[in-house]
Amino acid sequence: MLKLNIVCVGNLKEKFWKEACSEYQKRLQRFCNVKIIELAEQNKYDIVSKVLEEEGKEILASISGSCILLDIQGEEVSSEKLSTKLRNLEQNSSEITFVIGGSNGVSETVKNKIKDKVSFGKITLPHNLARVVLLEQIYRAYMINSGSKYHK
Amino acid sequence: MLKLNIVCVGNLKEKFWKEACSEYQKRLQRFCNVKIIELAEQNKYDIVSKVLEEEGKEILASISGSCILLDIQGEEVSSEKLSTKLRNLEQNSSEITFVIGGSNGVSETVKNKIKDKVSFGKITLPHNLARVVLLEQIYRAYMINSGSKYHK
Repeated sequence: MLKLNIVCVGNLKEKFWKEACSEYQKRLQRFCNVKIIELAEQNKYDIVSKVLEEEGKEILASISGSCILLDIQGEEVSSEKLSTKLRNLEQNSSEITFVIGGSNGVSETVKNKIKDKVSFGKITLPHNLARVVLLEQIYRAYMINSGSKYHK
Repeated sequence: MLKLNIVCVGNLKEKFWKEACSEYQKRLQRFCNVKIIELAEQNKYDIVSKVLEEEGKEILASISGSCILLDIQGEEVSSEKLSTKLRNLEQNSSEITFVIGGSNGVSETVKNKIKDKVSFGKITLPHNLARVVLLEQIYRAYMINSGSKYHK
């Protein structure tokens, strides 16, 4: 079974975000082995570039397999396109890692390292909501690939 | 104070969606008078066009003021663009209504009637998550317009 990791910076404080994520993680269990790797937001530094540098090190130490960075400047995908992408990746990888940056985004080092960048649109989402949207889109991708009427 | 209505088809079943929406409604209270108008999904008919026709009648009976339809085929906006749009609309309207369709979308009649259509990207979201994203984007628009660091 595919190992599907989601590396994210910043934890979920509110219970409703935790429950929304749990709901999709539960639904995904029959398709893949989902693991959420939650990294702490750096708060030791006042300078954003320093924060990103430190968070970047943690991100790069946590990724494995084929990596996809969620990036507003990445290739904008539809749900159908993401489903095709996931299906193709699964044919060559036993592990896929999605990365969601923290409230300041990610460092240039991370952007340079992770070539595969997808965007869900031009709107900026908070990291907690972005995590829910990503989980729903991964679930939707499996629904599309299995021909379910979840996605019509 | 601006009256800001969100007309949506389909109710929120899970508590976590209700709580996520409540959180943003609460935060919006100091900027506008938010009202969620929840219409029932039609389940009397098997034919999608008939469902959309009936839901469409309800939608059109519920809208007032300046209307914006969330439509995947609408003009794709960034959070900044939405904030400018809202600021401009507020100068001429005392009431703004956003419309989110049900799981089958909306009828052609609704699409023809509501000229102003915005898209948050190419991905398809379920109606419950779309409602949360819309509320967060409206809140973000107010944060952008008030110069808050919520949106950096």
